[in-house]
Amino acid sequence: MRLYNTKTKPMKALQFTGNKTFDLQDVDLQPVAPGEVRLKVAYCGVCGTDVHIYHGAMAQRLTLPQVIGHEVSAEIDVVGEGVSGWQVGDRVTVRPLKPGQAMAVDNGVRHIGQNLKFIGIDTPGGMQQYWNVPANTLHRLPDNLPLTIGAMVEPLAVACHDVRLGEVKAGENVVIIGGGPIGMLIALVARQKGANVLISEVNEARLQLAESMGLATVNPKDTDLVAHVENFTKGAMADVVFEVSGVQAGVTTMTQLPRVRGRIVMVAIHAEPKAVDLFRFFWRELKLIGARVYEPEDFEEAIALAASEASTPGTLPLGALITQISPLADAKSVFETIDNNPAGMKYLLQCDL
Amino acid sequence: MRLYNTKTKPMKALQFTGNKTFDLQDVDLQPVAPGEVRLKVAYCGVCGTDVHIYHGAMAQRLTLPQVIGHEVSAEIDVVGEGVSGWQVGDRVTVRPLKPGQAMAVDNGVRHIGQNLKFIGIDTPGGMQQYWNVPANTLHRLPDNLPLTIGAMVEPLAVACHDVRLGEVKAGENVVIIGGGPIGMLIALVARQKGANVLISEVNEARLQLAESMGLATVNPKDTDLVAHVENFTKGAMADVVFEVSGVQAGVTTMTQLPRVRGRIVMVAIHAEPKAVDLFRFFWRELKLIGARVYEPEDFEEAIALAASEASTPGTLPLGALITQISPLADAKSVFETIDNNPAGMKYLLQCDL
Ligand SMILES: NC(=O)c1ccc[n+]([C@@H]2O[C@H](COP(=O)([O-])OP(=O)(O)OC[C@H]3O[C@@H](n4cnc5c(N)ncnc54)[C@H](O)[C@@H]3O)[C@@H](O)[C@H]2O)c1
Ligand SMILES: NC(=O)c1ccc[n+]([C@@H]2O[C@H](COP(=O)([O-])OP(=O)(O)OC[C@H]3O[C@@H](n4cnc5c(N)ncnc54)[C@H](O)[C@@H]3O)[C@@H](O)[C@H]2O)c1
Ligand SMILES: [Zn+2]
Ligand SMILES: [Zn+2]
Repeated sequence: MRLYNTKTKPMKALQFTGNKTFDLQDVDLQPVAPGEVRLKVAYCGVCGTDVHIYHGAMAQRLTLPQVIGHEVSAEIDVVGEGVSGWQVGDRVTVRPLKPGQAMAVDNGVRHIGQNLKFIGIDTPGGMQQYWNVPANTLHRLPDNLPLTIGAMVEPLAVACHDVRLGEVKAGENVVIIGGGPIGMLIALVARQKGANVLISEVNEARLQLAESMGLATVNPKDTDLVAHVENFTKGAMADVVFEVSGVQAGVTTMTQLPRVRGRIVMVAIHAEPKAVDLFRFFWRELKLIGARVYEPEDFEEAIALAASEASTPGTLPLGALITQISPLADAKSVFETIDNNPAGMKYLLQCDL
Repeated sequence: MRLYNTKTKPMKALQFTGNKTFDLQDVDLQPVAPGEVRLKVAYCGVCGTDVHIYHGAMAQRLTLPQVIGHEVSAEIDVVGEGVSGWQVGDRVTVRPLKPGQAMAVDNGVRHIGQNLKFIGIDTPGGMQQYWNVPANTLHRLPDNLPLTIGAMVEPLAVACHDVRLGEVKAGENVVIIGGGPIGMLIALVARQKGANVLISEVNEARLQLAESMGLATVNPKDTDLVAHVENFTKGAMADVVFEVSGVQAGVTTMTQLPRVRGRIVMVAIHAEPKAVDLFRFFWRELKLIGARVYEPEDFEEAIALAASEASTPGTLPLGALITQISPLADAKSVFETIDNNPAGMKYLLQCDL
């Protein structure tokens, strides 16, 4: 019995060659190893991480030329040996994590282990027509979910993880510092949990987008943020604050907004140490909770939320966050547009050319 | 029915008059208000806070001349009107918190509220022969507990609170950064919970004291702390880190020691913002947990622990932390000694002269 297709044929792959350069090449299909599937990629979202890589970050983790990208919707093209539960044609998204050998320091946490590989950085990514991934990274997309929205599941799973670790409950006051794609998705998920959500953001176009989705907003450059949150929460202050701005101003305000025993979820990736008001942690018994990517249950929740929006529109308008959909061949101009348009949110590359 | 004694009579009170000066004065007994008791104070410990006040800190919270001190063992002298459950002669310690009007921002947390008063700072303290306190601040000391040890219950309750909020469990690896009185008590309580405890401290005399109590120690000035903890934990790194040093070096190392999903308890009071490696919170999903003083259950646990040591010596040798016991009249020289002896731990003032 032949479970997979060993025939190689030409396909298109967007090779990142370093120095802000991409090259759309005709390459051979890779043979499908046992435990893997080959995906026919529909869409691949451009993540902030991809933009950092484009600018030269994480060079030591890449093997140039390399395909990057990890926010994918796809159909299964070939099912590898030893893979059960999946069939050719199944619509899926990928949780781009490959756990390695467990270490004592990992504390049994599989999405963080020292030997974890991030697919699309440490190994080839999804900005190509066909992509081989381990079958255990797959999550099924329901039939009613458009594949454009399917490519939003990965960042939405980040938001689900953050909201879960922040233990956001219905009726709680939540402030999100930074309304980029991740902050905006956190806001939508927290609102869906019944929280009273406020987004603090400095970019006017992003503020308007948030308002168009019915989210309360504040621009901390124009308005005294602490006084505004006091007002917004009728004096109670925030139960949960998400720091998603990545800047010192966000870190400075994150400790001023929570009430006694409030939680602060650290979503942003701060490359350098920042000045933190540790007194406030003592004084109000605050908690700071670090959150990194997602676990399988966050993907399942993200898919369920995205699907509920597809059937009953309104609560989680993921489509509103898609700024532009472009063919893979236009990647160069897409990355240039992202650099020149700080108000843009999510850019998708269409890979089934 | 007369439940309390309104007769005033001379007694001794140690008045802090500002500018590093104390004055042992003969003062009148205060009438005992409804809901209060009058205590005949046995011992009053000198807290780091008292030393800060002596140096001029928190001046705006004091009303000079004022009696300070809040680490007390005592016997009840007079029971005020409306007080039930307490009798003259009962041996007690005081939880020196007076909650005020609750506010929304307090989140129902009574030991932290915006209108909380700290007895011994915001109101008169225990460095006097007789002391009136609200009856709801009292905790009963068992008969087998010496009153010297009874004066250690308040800082021990701090340690119980910190260990409880850190959720320390048997078998966990715990590192305490800073082996002052509070750090040392945290170490003892964590050990009593079955944790594998290491104290990081730079003062050689304090390191020796810790070792004399059977605690593992490391001096981060001589030894690579990260490598030492790796070794101490067989590669697992710390489940819980307590930052009790109050210095930048402690804050810098606190994020380097925990394993994935490890907890850091912020016990130290950092007056100024400090540089914190927030990347590490994201990368290892660390938690930072602020801890402030104690709740009633922490006092009950502290008393139970102190009493278990009194009946079966060895696990919690609180007596070993008492550096010196001096009459109240010698307060001036005691505060001078503390300033000149950074290795000293707990100094008690004997108040029943
Ligand atoms: N924890 C994780 O696993 C994870 C996953 C994905 C992204 N991230 C991180 O999350 C952060 C956000 O990602 P993103 O893609 O949304 O990035 P982004 O840069 O688009 O979003 C940051 C937003 O913060 C806003 N901002 C800047 N200064 C501000 C201020 N003073 N107050 C309020 N807002 C301010 C910016 O205008 C921007 O909209 C980044 O640091 C990213 O690296 C973390
Ligand atoms: N959270 C609360 O409610 C609460 C209650 C009481 C005290 N505190 C705070 O706890 C802290 C400790 O109190 P304490 O009375 O034990 O004070 P302390 O000053 O006696 O203890 C601090 C210890 O840290 C040591 N140290 C200095 N640099 C170090 C380094 N680089 N590495 C390791 N150790 C180092 C010092 O030698 C000292 O022994 C203080 O900041 C105090 O204000 C908090
Ligand atoms: Zn991403
Ligand atoms: Zn104290």
